[in-house]
Amino acid sequence: MSDKKKIYKPKAISGFPEWLPEERLVEQRWFDHIRKTFESYGFCSIETPSVEEIDVLLAKGEVDKEIYAVERIHKDEDDSKESRLALHFDQTVPFARYTAQHFNELVFPFKRYQMQRVWRGERPQMGRMREFYQCDIDVINVDNLSINYDAELPAIIYEALEGLNIGRVQLRISNRKILMGLLDSLKITDHVSITRIIDKIEKLEAHQIEQLLSDEGLNKEQIAKVSTLAQVKGSVDVIRNLTAENDLMQEGIDELTVVLDNLSHLPDHGVVGDLSIVRGLDYYTGTVYETQLLDVPEFTGSVCSGGRYDDLAGGFINKHLPGVGISIGFSRLFDILRQTSPEKLGIGPKSPTDILVYVENADDSAKANETARALRERDFNVEVYHPVKKWEKHLKYTEKKQIPFVWYPKADGHEVKDMSNSNTTASDPKTWSKDND
Amino acid sequence: MSDKKKIYKPKAISGFPEWLPEERLVEQRWFDHIRKTFESYGFCSIETPSVEEIDVLLAKGEVDKEIYAVERIHKDEDDSKESRLALHFDQTVPFARYTAQHFNELVFPFKRYQMQRVWRGERPQMGRMREFYQCDIDVINVDNLSINYDAELPAIIYEALEGLNIGRVQLRISNRKILMGLLDSLKITDHVSITRIIDKIEKLEAHQIEQLLSDEGLNKEQIAKVSTLAQVKGSVDVIRNLTAENDLMQEGIDELTVVLDNLSHLPDHGVVGDLSIVRGLDYYTGTVYETQLLDVPEFTGSVCSGGRYDDLAGGFINKHLPGVGISIGFSRLFDILRQTSPEKLGIGPKSPTDILVYVENADDSAKANETARALRERDFNVEVYHPVKKWEKHLKYTEKKQIPFVWYPKADGHEVKDMSNSNTTASDPKTWSKDND
Repeated sequence: MSDKKKIYKPKAISGFPEWLPEERLVEQRWFDHIRKTFESYGFCSIETPSVEEIDVLLAKGEVDKEIYAVERIHKDEDDSKESRLALHFDQTVPFARYTAQHFNELVFPFKRYQMQRVWRGERPQMGRMREFYQCDIDVINVDNLSINYDAELPAIIYEALEGLNIGRVQLRISNRKILMGLLDSLKITDHVSITRIIDKIEKLEAHQIEQLLSDEGLNKEQIAKVSTLAQVKGSVDVIRNLTAENDLMQEGIDELTVVLDNLSHLPDHGVVGDLSIVRGLDYYTGTVYETQLLDVPEFTGSVCSGGRYDDLAGGFINKHLPGVGISIGFSRLFDILRQTSPEKLGIGPKSPTDILVYVENADDSAKANETARALRERDFNVEVYHPVKKWEKHLKYTEKKQIPFVWYPKADGHEVKDMSNSNTTASDPKTWSKDND
Repeated sequence: MSDKKKIYKPKAISGFPEWLPEERLVEQRWFDHIRKTFESYGFCSIETPSVEEIDVLLAKGEVDKEIYAVERIHKDEDDSKESRLALHFDQTVPFARYTAQHFNELVFPFKRYQMQRVWRGERPQMGRMREFYQCDIDVINVDNLSINYDAELPAIIYEALEGLNIGRVQLRISNRKILMGLLDSLKITDHVSITRIIDKIEKLEAHQIEQLLSDEGLNKEQIAKVSTLAQVKGSVDVIRNLTAENDLMQEGIDELTVVLDNLSHLPDHGVVGDLSIVRGLDYYTGTVYETQLLDVPEFTGSVCSGGRYDDLAGGFINKHLPGVGISIGFSRLFDILRQTSPEKLGIGPKSPTDILVYVENADDSAKANETARALRERDFNVEVYHPVKKWEKHLKYTEKKQIPFVWYPKADGHEVKDMSNSNTTASDPKTWSKDND
C-alpha cells in the first residue's frame, strides 16, 4: 500500500437525488404527516423487498417502465440456479404479489399503505428521477369491494396533501364505466386507443382531439358524442344528471355519484367530477383519480393518481381480488417545490435540536451532560457542544444550525439564551419551558 | 392475449425478508423509538441514494462484502458512458462520500443518523440477510474531534436499545491504542494479524489463542503480555489503574477512562471496559464498541458496533476528517427476536386502528363517515367498516385485527363496544375517551 493519499472526488449521480439535512428535515415532516393521515384511517404499513423476481415484475406482460436488474458482482454457479432479480418500478405489483403470497395470514378487506423507494431507468429530467419515493394506499378485498372505499381514498389523499401546506389541492375524479358504456353504445370496440386519446385532452386543442378520433375511424356523430362526454366537468349534480346510453354507463354514473356525494365535506375547490380523466393503464375498471395542485403552476400533471381495478393480484393467485388505490408521487412533488418554490417547503433548521448546552471547559462536561439529560427527559432535543473552543465559536454553530436556545450550566445556577432576541435569563432544567424563557 | 388466467405463484426470495402487518407495526415502533432517541441528542437525519458508483464503494480498496451491481435491462449506448452503479453495502462509505461532496454546505461537527436498507450478496442464513436495515449514528469534524463524542455515542445507543424492551444491554468498550501501544513496546509490528487473533478471543480457548499468537512468531513473554492485556475487563477503575508501557498506550488508557467516566450514569451491567474488543476493520484508530444483549442468548455476537476513525472521508476530499460512529444491525436483531422470542417483540394488532365504526346499511354511511371524522379530529385512528354484511362479520374482523373498540352510530345516539370486556355503553364522538367507556 502506498502512503500517498489518492482522492476520488465524488459527484452526484444523475437521477438519484439526495438532500441536505435541512431539506431532509422537511421531507421527514412530510412523511410523518402522510403516515399519520393514512394510519388515522386504520391503514397498516407494509414494506416489501426492493427487489422482485423479474418474472413477477413482468407477470402482467411487457412493462413500459425501464427496469433495473440486480446481480452479484462475484457471481458463482449457485446464482445461475436462482431467479433473476430486479428493483421494483412501482409498489402496486409488489403489493399484489404480497397479498397473494400471504393471503391466508391477512385480514380482508386488506387496507395497507406503503412508502418506499422505487426505481426506473428512465432518462432523468426536472422532476423525473431514477430513484424516488412513492406513498401508496390501497384496499383490496375478496370477490367484491364496497364503492365506499372509492370515496374514502380521495378523502384521505386530500387530507394528506392539504396538510403539507402547499396550497389548494383539487381531486379530479371520473369513472371509466361512463366512457366505456358510451363507446359500447356507439359500437366502438377499440376502447384502449380511444382512452389514450382522451387522456391527452388537457395537452391538445379540441380540433386535434377530434382529428385523432377521426383517425381511429370514428364518424362525426361518434366524435361529437365522445368529445362532449369527455368535456363534462362539474359537481355531483352535473354527473347525476347525465343521461345514460346503457347499463354500464348508468353504473358508472351511479358509482361516481356515490363517490362525489361522500366527498361533500371537502371545500368546493377540493373535488370535481371530470370525465376527461381516464388514466392510461388498462387495469383500471371503474373509478379513476388525478390530483392537481392549484397553487403550484410549476407542477404540471397529476401529483397523485390511481383508481379501481377489478382483479389486481389475479396473476399471482386463483382468487378474485378487486381493489382501489392511489399513489402519491412523493419525491417528484418534493423536488419540484424544492427547486421552484422553496418557501412553500418551509426549509429552516439544519437539525432537530431545541437547545445547545455549552461546555465552558473540559471539567464541566459532567455537569453539561447531566443538564442535557434533565432537559431530554422533558422531551427537548438537546445537544452538548463538546468542542471546548473560543466563546464565539459555539454561537456561530448555534446560528448556522438555527438552534433556538443555548444553555449555560453554571456553578451558581443556569442561564438560557434565546437566540431569537439574544435575551439571557436564569433558569432550571427541571422546570424550564420554551415559553417562559 | 388469451382469456385463460395464467397464475405465477410467487415465493419468498431468500435473504430478502418481508414482514406481516402485525410485525411491521412493531418494526415501526422500533424505528420511531430509535429515531426519537437519536434526535433527542440533536442528530439530524440524512438519506443517501441506494446506489453509489462502484468506484466510490471500492475507494478504500477491495471490499470483502459481496456487492450487488445495478444495470438497466434495456441498456443503450448512453449507459456505457456512465459510471457503473452498485447497491451500497453499508452506510459508512455513503456517509463519507456525502460529507465530502457537500462539505461546504454542512455545519461541523456534523452529527447525523441514517436508517436505510443496505445490500450484501452473502449466503443467506438465520439472521444474515441480503437486504437489511442498519441504524447508524456518527459525528465527524474537521481536523480534530473531542473524545466526549466517543462517550456520547454509547450513551445514545444504550438508550436506543434499552427502550426496545428486549432485556439488559451491555456496552463493551475498548481503545485500540492500548493494545497497539503494547504491541509497539513489545516490538511486534504486524498489528493487523494480532488484532484479528484477539478478535477471536470470545470464540476460542485460551490455549488456542496462545497457539495462534505463537504461530505469528510471538515469544512466550510477548504472548503472556498480549493475552493478559486482552483479558482485562472491568470498571473504569480497572482501566485507570493499568500500567502503560509507552505514550500511545497511556493515551488509550486516558481516553478509555474519559469515555467510561462519562457513562457512569448507566446501570452497572450497562457498560464495561473490555480490552478483548478490537473490531476487525482496520480503519478504527481509538475507541471501539461492541454491544451484547444479556437476556437474548439466541443473539450471538454484537448487536451494534463501531468506533473512532482518524480520517474516514480522506479518500474523497483533501481534508482531515476524524469521526466516531456506531451502527445497529437493525434487521438482524429484529428477525432473531421475531423467530426466537416473539413475546419480546410484543406483536399484537394487525393495524393501527383504535376504533371501528360500524355501518348498519348503505344509507348510514354518511353518518358513519361523520362520526369517524369527529373521532379522528380527537387523534384516534378510526376505520369505517364499509362492507354491509351480516352482523357477526364486523365483529370477527374487529377481533382478527385486534381493534379495541367498535362504534355504533345510531339515530338516537351512539354506542361503543369495548372488545376487551364486551361492554357496550352510550357515548358521544366529541367527548369520548378510551378510559371513560
